[in-house]
Amino acid sequence: MSKFENVTVVKKANMYFDGKVTSRTIEFANGDVKTLGIMMPGEYRFGTDKKEIMEILAGQVEVLLPGEDLWHKIGGGDSFEVPANSAFDIKVLDVTDYCCSYLG
Amino acid sequence: MSKFENVTVVKKANMYFDGKVTSRTIEFANGDVKTLGIMMPGEYRFGTDKKEIMEILAGQVEVLLPGEDLWHKIGGGDSFEVPANSAFDIKVLDVTDYCCSYLG
Repeated sequence: MSKFENVTVVKKANMYFDGKVTSRTIEFANGDVKTLGIMMPGEYRFGTDKKEIMEILAGQVEVLLPGEDLWHKIGGGDSFEVPANSAFDIKVLDVTDYCCSYLG
Repeated sequence: MSKFENVTVVKKANMYFDGKVTSRTIEFANGDVKTLGIMMPGEYRFGTDKKEIMEILAGQVEVLLPGEDLWHKIGGGDSFEVPANSAFDIKVLDVTDYCCSYLG
């Protein structure tokens, strides 16, 4: 699916890490929420409230998921899941375009 | 208006200047198109096809409009217009969140 139809977009961007990570909140008619975001190269740590599915649309990252020791290399077209109420570390190797879905 | 309702969002970001400028395309039911974007600090030159209204949602820029010699300082809440088929120079002083409307 290359477009989200019949959605609501919050105009102002969400900004993190001095604007190195930014996103737009997309609200769906069924109550689902996703964010479409950009991560500039760098290393970040994100906490989660809900379970998240991070879909990498373009770019290249390495991710250390909670409770794991090995970094996963993830590129455009791949995704990863992060449990609710946890955190993950991410190394952004190239400017990365992502879509984050919040579940539950 | 803080949200755009009943719109279509193109999932993949538009990327310019090695990702220092990125945006999402928002399509409205009446055929209007806007982009919601982020500009990282730097100096850029953009060409226009249609007339554009650039609304600065947050951040700080200086703009040199076509045919002018003076740079305009523009911050969050302000906007500027650029004629169709022209170009403008922009100095982004802080990470800047913008909404661009394409007219005509």
